[in-house]
Amino acid sequence: MHTIAIAGAGTVGAALIQSVLASVPIRLKAVLVRDAGKPRPGLPTGLDYVTDPAAILADPEIDTVVELMGGTGAAFELASGALAAGKHLVTANKNLLAERGPELFALARDKGRSIGFEAAVCAGMPVIRALQEALRADRVSAIEGILNGTTNYILTRMAEDNLDYAAALAQAQRLGFAEPDPANDVSGVDAACKLGILAALAFHRRVEWRAIPAQGIQDLQAEDLRQAARMGYRVKLLARAALDQNGRLDSTVGPALIPVGHPLAAVRDEFNALMVASDGFGRNLFMGKGAGPAPTAASLLADILDIAQGRGWPVGADHPFLAGPAPAGAGAAPCRLYLRLAVPDRPGVLAAVAGRFAEAGVSIASVLQPETAGGGGPVLVPLILTTHAAATEAAARLRETLAEPGRPAPVVLPIVDD
Amino acid sequence: MHTIAIAGAGTVGAALIQSVLASVPIRLKAVLVRDAGKPRPGLPTGLDYVTDPAAILADPEIDTVVELMGGTGAAFELASGALAAGKHLVTANKNLLAERGPELFALARDKGRSIGFEAAVCAGMPVIRALQEALRADRVSAIEGILNGTTNYILTRMAEDNLDYAAALAQAQRLGFAEPDPANDVSGVDAACKLGILAALAFHRRVEWRAIPAQGIQDLQAEDLRQAARMGYRVKLLARAALDQNGRLDSTVGPALIPVGHPLAAVRDEFNALMVASDGFGRNLFMGKGAGPAPTAASLLADILDIAQGRGWPVGADHPFLAGPAPAGAGAAPCRLYLRLAVPDRPGVLAAVAGRFAEAGVSIASVLQPETAGGGGPVLVPLILTTHAAATEAAARLRETLAEPGRPAPVVLPIVDD
Repeated sequence: MHTIAIAGAGTVGAALIQSVLASVPIRLKAVLVRDAGKPRPGLPTGLDYVTDPAAILADPEIDTVVELMGGTGAAFELASGALAAGKHLVTANKNLLAERGPELFALARDKGRSIGFEAAVCAGMPVIRALQEALRADRVSAIEGILNGTTNYILTRMAEDNLDYAAALAQAQRLGFAEPDPANDVSGVDAACKLGILAALAFHRRVEWRAIPAQGIQDLQAEDLRQAARMGYRVKLLARAALDQNGRLDSTVGPALIPVGHPLAAVRDEFNALMVASDGFGRNLFMGKGAGPAPTAASLLADILDIAQGRGWPVGADHPFLAGPAPAGAGAAPCRLYLRLAVPDRPGVLAAVAGRFAEAGVSIASVLQPETAGGGGPVLVPLILTTHAAATEAAARLRETLAEPGRPAPVVLPIVDD
Repeated sequence: MHTIAIAGAGTVGAALIQSVLASVPIRLKAVLVRDAGKPRPGLPTGLDYVTDPAAILADPEIDTVVELMGGTGAAFELASGALAAGKHLVTANKNLLAERGPELFALARDKGRSIGFEAAVCAGMPVIRALQEALRADRVSAIEGILNGTTNYILTRMAEDNLDYAAALAQAQRLGFAEPDPANDVSGVDAACKLGILAALAFHRRVEWRAIPAQGIQDLQAEDLRQAARMGYRVKLLARAALDQNGRLDSTVGPALIPVGHPLAAVRDEFNALMVASDGFGRNLFMGKGAGPAPTAASLLADILDIAQGRGWPVGADHPFLAGPAPAGAGAAPCRLYLRLAVPDRPGVLAAVAGRFAEAGVSIASVLQPETAGGGGPVLVPLILTTHAAATEAAARLRETLAEPGRPAPVVLPIVDD
């Protein structure tokens, strides 16, 4: 019987152990933990806990190691050790793949072993296998999606309950949808890591997440989501990667306005979604939970079963993580923009702002200065504008030229219209 | 090199031949056609056309037969002959699986061969492999979706362009989204066939499509879609199968009102979608094109590659198509109803109708009789009602008791609220 060891017995590990023991012809030989004596009331008795990774790496009976330790230090030692010892690797560790992926895949290639990582990206929807299998002979031209459940939950609450960012974040934290330190999620870094992995599989090139420009949602206000709704849009943290006509890759992560009828606009709360555009299939959408113990365990188990049944993915020399980096394109196609500025409530301000747009070469399509309660004085009021289609550089110029010392940075969001 | 034969050189066959020749390490040895001498300007020269199926079945070099003939007669002869001769089968033929699936899967089991049929159901989205792989160790509780592109195109045009059914159908036919004889699609039969196949994979039981109650879209009017929109819903031809608490299966196909914020409400035009609810993954949505030469060819090619690379699906004794039939449940959970009746425009009618609801044990929630231009006389006017939650039998009783000789049958649609 296919024999596995699981490294890590947190919530995901516990869920996986339960399902392995409950239902499938897999033998669980060892569980690697820090403290073998710690009581684990959520887990069945009789498990063989070990604290030394070497006990797993040296055991010839163990076919596959499931890495659930997190981080890129001890997890890398274990994962690389397992591959070097000729074992298969299954992991839910996105950061490990983003930071040390090429080394691990090179090891797997040298040893002819599989790495299963469906659970590492958008755990609750089978996008990795879709890209590796169903779409592998198709030519993908673009992928775009909502890859971070934390920010999608916050944006949904801001839009539907009219909460401000801080209140929505606090609610997400209370419910376990956001970490105590949410920086990695709200800054767009987590989505960029995932986009890098998905883009590599979609475009058969290595994609370095650090090279993906990422903008977060921290500067958004409930006002932005209200205005977007009035215009017929939802604001979503959108991750996009597309090939241009010369086969160069443009990737970005950032909040964007999406028309309410667009399938991605219907993705609410902690859900993730990915849309894949390709020559053969046309447009394919996947939507599911991005994380959580049960979805992650379900994806891990599917990977384990594939390997156990001889249907794994032995890493070949042509694996995307071993390929050269994708050449960078010149930036996304021109698109309309939504802007919110904080301006002083006094004569001449609109003329000055309009002048900056003219300098940046961007044409204004609409202006709205909502009535505010303020009664005179040097108070800042919101000024909301939309533009006609503007190139990426023009948008960057605008962002710069509209910034004023002592005022909040302008919020500049692309409007997606397809 | 893995060697295949393709039976059928219509639009799908042509698309598949182009992609096989263009990109992948697969050898195309023969193409079965009716007339080998017919000019085929869309296809490359040098293909080896044959007209006798025996030439393919008897050729030991051919590993896999791709059946694109359609129908259940000659296609069954070829498919069963190929399996009997120890070849793998890849097919895009939904009707073949629905009518002769058990025989073909029994043959494949006896010979240890694979049947790839991703292209047979919702060709442009990888739902078959999701159910067979990612979800195979998960417990699915329900599947629901939009499985017929023709009806979804018609309903989208009725809703968005305010067309009546006949005009929307004519437009679908002009654009190739509907057959000259659309009966199979608009009656819900096509969706029921697909639901039967998907439900078998989801619930690991044989599901006979003829046992699935199917209602079509022929009786819908633009008025229904307008009213639904005013209430915050879209009308979709919904295919649903769910296990009840006793593990019995309730399946239906029919038009239903879906809230605009629901992901299935965003599925427009000829697109298909499937939502899978399971213990592990939670909710998973797939959306893509349901048919068309390019998506179908892409799915066929993925199946061929899987088999060629030793990653096929040898049919085991536990294959759902070889399992016993799923026990039938008592009907879907109670839900609210939308009704449109054609009633004479005269005093006392509403009282009479309300009496029928009381008899059927269904509580009316809202009534609307739109102002009409009619000036007296025995003209029929629409009467639109919604109800509080009603059980399936109550809805059936209503349908019966409200029917009047000489008047159009009442339109009774479930309202989906989750």
